[in-house]
Amino acid sequence: MAEPLFRRLCLVGLGLIGSSLARLARERGDIAGTLVACDASEAVAGRVRELGLADVVETDPAKAVEGCDGVILCTPVGRFGAVMERIAPHLSPGGVLSDVGSTKGSVLRDLLPLLPRGVHLVPAHPMAGTEHSGPDAGFATLFQGRYVILTPVEGGDAAAQEKIAELWRRCGAMIETMDPATHDKVVAIVSHLPHMIAFTICSTADDLAQETREQVLKFAASGFRDFTRIAASDVDMWRDVFLNNREALLEMLARFSEDAHALGRAVRWGEAGFIEDRIRRGRKIRRSLIELKQA
Amino acid sequence: MAEPLFRRLCLVGLGLIGSSLARLARERGDIAGTLVACDASEAVAGRVRELGLADVVETDPAKAVEGCDGVILCTPVGRFGAVMERIAPHLSPGGVLSDVGSTKGSVLRDLLPLLPRGVHLVPAHPMAGTEHSGPDAGFATLFQGRYVILTPVEGGDAAAQEKIAELWRRCGAMIETMDPATHDKVVAIVSHLPHMIAFTICSTADDLAQETREQVLKFAASGFRDFTRIAASDVDMWRDVFLNNREALLEMLARFSEDAHALGRAVRWGEAGFIEDRIRRGRKIRRSLIELKQA
Repeated sequence: MAEPLFRRLCLVGLGLIGSSLARLARERGDIAGTLVACDASEAVAGRVRELGLADVVETDPAKAVEGCDGVILCTPVGRFGAVMERIAPHLSPGGVLSDVGSTKGSVLRDLLPLLPRGVHLVPAHPMAGTEHSGPDAGFATLFQGRYVILTPVEGGDAAAQEKIAELWRRCGAMIETMDPATHDKVVAIVSHLPHMIAFTICSTADDLAQETREQVLKFAASGFRDFTRIAASDVDMWRDVFLNNREALLEMLARFSEDAHALGRAVRWGEAGFIEDRIRRGRKIRRSLIELKQA
Repeated sequence: MAEPLFRRLCLVGLGLIGSSLARLARERGDIAGTLVACDASEAVAGRVRELGLADVVETDPAKAVEGCDGVILCTPVGRFGAVMERIAPHLSPGGVLSDVGSTKGSVLRDLLPLLPRGVHLVPAHPMAGTEHSGPDAGFATLFQGRYVILTPVEGGDAAAQEKIAELWRRCGAMIETMDPATHDKVVAIVSHLPHMIAFTICSTADDLAQETREQVLKFAASGFRDFTRIAASDVDMWRDVFLNNREALLEMLARFSEDAHALGRAVRWGEAGFIEDRIRRGRKIRRSLIELKQA
């Protein structure tokens, strides 16, 4: 078996992503010599112990990262600032600090100012997930065939970056690099706006008069059902994503909103050609995804 | 085997729904003594012949409905008026005229004025579909376990309505009745608005600068991918649905749009509580669907 990538690796936050990573690290054995799992919730930490997901389980991040040559933040991005304040004095010089957050501008904003000299920051975003959350929801194959986007910091350490890239390759993922601003714009339209829309349409349905709402639930055909699957996602994670990718998300919402109103106007005035064009563009995008094997 | 429900049944329009119904009627044998398939497109009619989906295949609806005791319109709803003009003089007294359209107010508007005395109109809407279309896309189990909504006309014939209900029961569907206005409102939020939104977000993505668009296609995570699946649907059908359920659809779009802007505003001003509430409502709707076995 290959040498473990990290002598002692700490995962902070054992939700869907963190617990999937832990399962995979346990399964492979070549990711961490010793695996430390840290979750501030006693309940989660207890469950992680029961599931046997790590060698050491802690609830205090300061203690958890002590002596680790690798630390990966897997909490909702809104907690990164507070976690960093706690762990910064305890990070080992020469070690690697990474994360799995869905917003990358905010990660730089929250982590860089507190980063101790000699600790290498490598922001990463595995584009994988399900609508389930918590330590029981994880599974070792979650990252198989999915993209992981690295957004390297200026003047960052090449060896540290390669180490994180190799970690994700061992998880079965494909590596891409991007600057943080482009990353945030791409995920805004690919993931954050669709989630925002899904939450919204469920709220809209929830506000309908009682009788109509009951019918809506009864007759949820495939269209609406797909939206509710997306809308079932974790509350804390998505609140933090929205608040931490505000600029890009609001830009995409504004563009989408203009387009939705233009289509609504075409429906009102019976402009068949405009409507057909919009439907065709949807099909074109779908075909592109199929060609790129993303559908 | 039970007596066929119809001595001679004509399906007008052999797309996904029509061809699924034809396959099932052929398979069961107790739906139509003789099955007539009519499609105005020579190409579709030819393909229906090749696939052996009916006893008789026609391209002229007037000729096709001649001598039938049952006729079901399966074309996009925008063609109902024109088809009805052609077939009305050829419908058999005592026969049943039904349809599978997704909009029911428009069906009454387009069919009732031309309905010959003694022909019984029973509007119906099977809530089933896929993103595929055409005679090759159909399959006999499409309606299994799905709802079919009947929107009976005032003073309509009870025996005719029971005959159509029984047809759909034999397809494995569950029958509900509703007034046309309620039907149109429910499907607007359950199906038409989600499709409108899916088409729109694909257009929005398609309008992004070349580089971002390529990245979008590459990193289409589950959120966006689900939207494109919906957006792959048939152009003619959805144009007609939007134009023929205009009032209800625009009302739902307006409500959704208000809600989306409210959520956008909460993101802009960092109102975490409001955002969490919206996400929770999405989860609540999802749970209701799971309890109702619609998820």
